[in-house]
Amino acid sequence: MNQDYIKPDNWSVIEEGFDVTRIKSSESLFSIGNGAMGQRANFEENYTGETFQGSYIAGIYYPDKTKVGWWKNGYPEYFAKVLNAPNWIGIDIEINGENLDLNTCVEVKNFRRELNMKEGWYNRSFNAILKNGTEIAVNVRRFVSLKLDEIGIINYEITPLNKNAKIIYKPYVDAGITNEDANWEEKFWEPLEVSKANNKAFVTAQTFKTHFKVTTFMQNSIWSNGQKTAISPSDVETKSDKIQFNYDVIVAQGEKSSIQKIGGYTVSLNHKNTLIAAEKAIEEAVSKGYELLLEDQINAWSEIWEMSDITIEGDVKAQQGIRFNIFQLNQTYLGKDSRLNIGPKGFTGEKYGGSTYWDTEAYCIPFYMATKDQEVTRNLLTYRYNQLDKAIENASKLGFVNGAALYPMVTMNGEECHNEWEITFEEIHRNGAIAFAIYNFHRYTGDYSYIPEKGLEVLIGIARFWHQRVNYSSNQKKYVILGVTGPNEYENNVNNNFYTNYIAKWCLEYTYEQVQKVSLEYPLDHKRITEKVKITNSELQSWKNVSDNMYFPFSEEHNLYLQQDGFLDKDLVRVADLHKDQRPINQKWSWDRILRSPYIKQADVLQCFYFFEDHFTREELKNNFDFYESFTVHESSLSPCVHSIQAALLDKMDMAYSFYLRTSRLDLDDYNHEVEEGCHITSMAGTWMSIVEGFGGLRVRDNTLHFSPKIPKQWQSYSFKINFRNQILTVVVSQNETHFYVNGDTKLALVVNDQKVFASKSPQN
Amino acid sequence: MNQDYIKPDNWSVIEEGFDVTRIKSSESLFSIGNGAMGQRANFEENYTGETFQGSYIAGIYYPDKTKVGWWKNGYPEYFAKVLNAPNWIGIDIEINGENLDLNTCVEVKNFRRELNMKEGWYNRSFNAILKNGTEIAVNVRRFVSLKLDEIGIINYEITPLNKNAKIIYKPYVDAGITNEDANWEEKFWEPLEVSKANNKAFVTAQTFKTHFKVTTFMQNSIWSNGQKTAISPSDVETKSDKIQFNYDVIVAQGEKSSIQKIGGYTVSLNHKNTLIAAEKAIEEAVSKGYELLLEDQINAWSEIWEMSDITIEGDVKAQQGIRFNIFQLNQTYLGKDSRLNIGPKGFTGEKYGGSTYWDTEAYCIPFYMATKDQEVTRNLLTYRYNQLDKAIENASKLGFVNGAALYPMVTMNGEECHNEWEITFEEIHRNGAIAFAIYNFHRYTGDYSYIPEKGLEVLIGIARFWHQRVNYSSNQKKYVILGVTGPNEYENNVNNNFYTNYIAKWCLEYTYEQVQKVSLEYPLDHKRITEKVKITNSELQSWKNVSDNMYFPFSEEHNLYLQQDGFLDKDLVRVADLHKDQRPINQKWSWDRILRSPYIKQADVLQCFYFFEDHFTREELKNNFDFYESFTVHESSLSPCVHSIQAALLDKMDMAYSFYLRTSRLDLDDYNHEVEEGCHITSMAGTWMSIVEGFGGLRVRDNTLHFSPKIPKQWQSYSFKINFRNQILTVVVSQNETHFYVNGDTKLALVVNDQKVFASKSPQN
Repeated sequence: MNQDYIKPDNWSVIEEGFDVTRIKSSESLFSIGNGAMGQRANFEENYTGETFQGSYIAGIYYPDKTKVGWWKNGYPEYFAKVLNAPNWIGIDIEINGENLDLNTCVEVKNFRRELNMKEGWYNRSFNAILKNGTEIAVNVRRFVSLKLDEIGIINYEITPLNKNAKIIYKPYVDAGITNEDANWEEKFWEPLEVSKANNKAFVTAQTFKTHFKVTTFMQNSIWSNGQKTAISPSDVETKSDKIQFNYDVIVAQGEKSSIQKIGGYTVSLNHKNTLIAAEKAIEEAVSKGYELLLEDQINAWSEIWEMSDITIEGDVKAQQGIRFNIFQLNQTYLGKDSRLNIGPKGFTGEKYGGSTYWDTEAYCIPFYMATKDQEVTRNLLTYRYNQLDKAIENASKLGFVNGAALYPMVTMNGEECHNEWEITFEEIHRNGAIAFAIYNFHRYTGDYSYIPEKGLEVLIGIARFWHQRVNYSSNQKKYVILGVTGPNEYENNVNNNFYTNYIAKWCLEYTYEQVQKVSLEYPLDHKRITEKVKITNSELQSWKNVSDNMYFPFSEEHNLYLQQDGFLDKDLVRVADLHKDQRPINQKWSWDRILRSPYIKQADVLQCFYFFEDHFTREELKNNFDFYESFTVHESSLSPCVHSIQAALLDKMDMAYSFYLRTSRLDLDDYNHEVEEGCHITSMAGTWMSIVEGFGGLRVRDNTLHFSPKIPKQWQSYSFKINFRNQILTVVVSQNETHFYVNGDTKLALVVNDQKVFASKSPQN
Repeated sequence: MNQDYIKPDNWSVIEEGFDVTRIKSSESLFSIGNGAMGQRANFEENYTGETFQGSYIAGIYYPDKTKVGWWKNGYPEYFAKVLNAPNWIGIDIEINGENLDLNTCVEVKNFRRELNMKEGWYNRSFNAILKNGTEIAVNVRRFVSLKLDEIGIINYEITPLNKNAKIIYKPYVDAGITNEDANWEEKFWEPLEVSKANNKAFVTAQTFKTHFKVTTFMQNSIWSNGQKTAISPSDVETKSDKIQFNYDVIVAQGEKSSIQKIGGYTVSLNHKNTLIAAEKAIEEAVSKGYELLLEDQINAWSEIWEMSDITIEGDVKAQQGIRFNIFQLNQTYLGKDSRLNIGPKGFTGEKYGGSTYWDTEAYCIPFYMATKDQEVTRNLLTYRYNQLDKAIENASKLGFVNGAALYPMVTMNGEECHNEWEITFEEIHRNGAIAFAIYNFHRYTGDYSYIPEKGLEVLIGIARFWHQRVNYSSNQKKYVILGVTGPNEYENNVNNNFYTNYIAKWCLEYTYEQVQKVSLEYPLDHKRITEKVKITNSELQSWKNVSDNMYFPFSEEHNLYLQQDGFLDKDLVRVADLHKDQRPINQKWSWDRILRSPYIKQADVLQCFYFFEDHFTREELKNNFDFYESFTVHESSLSPCVHSIQAALLDKMDMAYSFYLRTSRLDLDDYNHEVEEGCHITSMAGTWMSIVEGFGGLRVRDNTLHFSPKIPKQWQSYSFKINFRNQILTVVVSQNETHFYVNGDTKLALVVNDQKVFASKSPQN
């Protein structure tokens, strides 16, 4: 835990003091991104202490060779690696002949970082005393532009405090970088070309194998006391994969000198000629200049916050937490490009590789539906539609036929890129979440058009998978699903995981219904699709037969759905009775011990109750919640949010609040001792759900928003906005009352605590 | 399948014809070994075609770094690799200025290999026409000496057929070799020193990390028409890891020239100074000379065959098969050294790494007990006793306490060296076989002394493991064992594997009884041991409680023990109804499909019936055999032998015979398309059991040998010998009668088909 390290603040993440042991975790927390590129909070100047260098470009990956114990048929040949991209931020600094390196300075004082989430920039300032006795004050601000998303900018300002200084600024671009995570310690980038002109430089490199071509560029200007100077490089160092410019300046004691570096990437995903594109990108940025770019940035973030902000009065840590989550989600994915998705670490680290997990459909889509234009979620759905052929190919590698589709557990481009049999082959519930997201999109937006256009084909592929994946048990006289891993990954290769069986049944039923509906309401689409996928009535009836006769493990004695067959044979010691020194169990216990224990990484029976809340009674929810919560260790970042929502529903508000804090400050407080590897981006959407669906009680039923607002006793009030079918609803919940406002003059009918009410324009507007 | 490729012969394995696609499989089949070292049938001269080079030294291994998908707590950091050792066999040949290379010759004629199992040598002969037009006849014989087990010898004979030839013999020793199987493509050997004197050369190298030091040596002599010449090397090429001598000779057309190369290894496991030891080894071998060494070899093998041969009249393929199995077992392990064990590939390949699996205890020990001095098996038991501390350490890494021992799945020196969680952590039944072997040794030999001396401590460590590994299920009101992989590795992480539960119960019970027995009969040992391991009466009672209340999955409806919980929920399509093109399923199916299918790699319920035959009725055996055999695909080499034995017991002799053929000719006929990786050494002991226990019906009950002889209709007769408590019993079974003879004048009481009889001396003797 990092608790109390990050300074509480409503709008900023703030670190004060220089602590070499926290460099890597702060590099994660102070990351910046704009949906297209991102950057860990690495120092611009050289740092010889421990650091985890990370610059990332959306959609650029590398298929690293994998090696496992014993190879299994059907394993993909590679694991997609999130790539450390060429460095555009580097500016080495020489002061009176000595390199600035915070690891070797005599003293570093007043070290402070601020990630200003309101305005979208990152600032670092400190005083340093070098070995040569020179003391300098440094202030560095940088951001990656939301408006010009190939551009980042750095303003690096130095003031010599105790003597005049000869400063050499050495900005560079460098493709000679390595990955932290590389199975074979190989290089992933092949340099192609370096070039320069005036204060600009370009390094073009491509990834091996995938051949993504990237031009990494920079343009520099030197400023003195706020005035741009005409200084040119005194020296240029060129290597095959790097260019560095040296700018020499003499700065008098107390005077302010700075370098402004514009940098970034142009990539072959978007441009035929990345070099020309880089010239243009620089030109556009330079013509604006730093101040205007910053103004654009502030405005762009202001627009985002206008729609997605959640305010919390009376609890600054909770406020900071939720804003950090919303900020990171918006840094990671803005929905502009249906080739992209939401990586579990966003632009904050490499871990997990790949960009797309079931996290997107299960956790992220509600956030994007409610806080963005509808097109954003449509792009996320289309991403899967575009990869349907590869999902069918993936299933066929595992022996499925007739267009059955199994979406990958982890992917960049639709190909599976994870290989552990218990996950790759068995964690098949992911297919269900992809179908559920299609349903959820229609439920929320009321827009059915996606289903006849694209969604139905995806649903059919998924239904066919489930239909082939079950088998009839003559013993149970039901259909069973053997050998799966549920969302609770602390069980592997179990039979009849309740969640998986339930979502499989639901997929078959829902797809069956949509085929009927499209047949009646969109006959042309129906004809096109049925001809393409060759579906017959008897196939549909066979789906129905399976969904009507699915087996669910249930204990009459405990009146409980069982997480899987045999769950009650475990040694049922509750988490409360497990000694603290045994936790987290994934760090303390061997895998077999975790598997045979009753402990749950994230409770998948409860995840099922979350998705299909209206299928169950409150009494059932309570029984199952009380039972499974008591065995849940929440060692998945995706776990606490669902528990928070359900605890709120069950009026366990203290519990709901504590889960909320855990999910919202998971990274800021480093609950799991791993934030140095990057932030948990996808679970951040769960934090948003904890407030909106948990405390606010938002549900969509029968095309109507329902609320049952509650508020933690620690808070004075909170508010959020949602975009519902082109109306913007603001919800303000205080200890005594709730207000609902809409923008515009059209009222919006709501159901609040089972009463029909109408939200209208705020009286203040 | 390779069927009909190897020529049928009673005593030899014979290949005729040169087929480049079969080089690697023949390299396996024609391997030679002497328990201390071994050698695949690689050519002496350079061969540029596909080959799998393998020279092996018993007990020498390398801890290769491993990489798995996601690391699990408790995994060992390395995987022991069977090492390709430095090359002592190499002799490059130059004929009239051209290198002899069978891959590039104009023609290779009359290519023939013979592995003479009776006499223990390997011979290769061929005629080759070189590109320069020279035709030569070559005959090469080599063997590794049983008597001088650091020595191998090669007699390489060349006759120019169509012209005179200038021949340059280039014998070498070379430590610059690589492994086929290396996770990181590293070199495993570090050269230390090369030296030479006259016709002798030495390369000393050590393994990285494990620092086994090995001197690889050679001594050469050149012969002309059977007469030794005084030729010295014309040239010596020395590198840091290799020495090569060049011997130039001019040979007239039709004349016979040859080189004799003595070579081999001296290792730091056995010698302080391996170089001095090498000098001595050479001296001893040279003083004997080739002919005497060969005579020794023939005599040594004759002694082995005298005791272990099985004859089969009327079925040459069956005869060749069983002798190949017996020959390979004796090449691999001779029981001289308790630091060694029986690797699954012996000296024929690298696959699987490690030397010791549960195969030793479950399959090999019966063979060694019956065909060798009792000391051999005692050494195999002592091997595990010596590794008890490491087994306790291994269990403690997995969270077990109080001296609980988990023997490794795969090991060289007692440390686990395999990492796949479902095997390393869960295939825990291996512990049971190690206990069973102790029981089996006492049952067979009648010698109890091993138990108070050493065995009891092993049993206690194992019992403690089981006692902690069960948990009480309040649901079943019994003790259950969750999350295991049984001997049938086509199921992973199952609950209540019948075999595992049964052997766990048996271990607890048996250990409980042995503690009582030692307490009464060996009070001093009892005191020593109980003080050491601090065992209390209440602990013993607790074991008893668990063993008395173990849960076993059972179906009343089918009157069957269930392989594991939930087995009957599978889609129970029998192997007979599975299309042939789906097999072998481990090559055709993804792992999840194998796991959820009913198909069995080796039937572990039947393995339990094999170990504990007398605990079950014949009716139970029949029911369970009929059921599980119908789902067994026998894709483990260890599978068919048990089925053969039980089929024989159930009077299904056709089935028993076909299983026998499959097990005995598994490698010769290459059933599983993988013999090029090496032979299946440990399962060869199962072949021996198929005849002795299956057809012969050997059992030991109440200190008496029982037989119920049967004979396949394809055979006229068969015979085998067993060493039973210092009497040698010969059993000869023909279609009409069975004869039992003993050596010496003391009769031996037997039970044959439930009748008591006495075996006496053969009338011929």
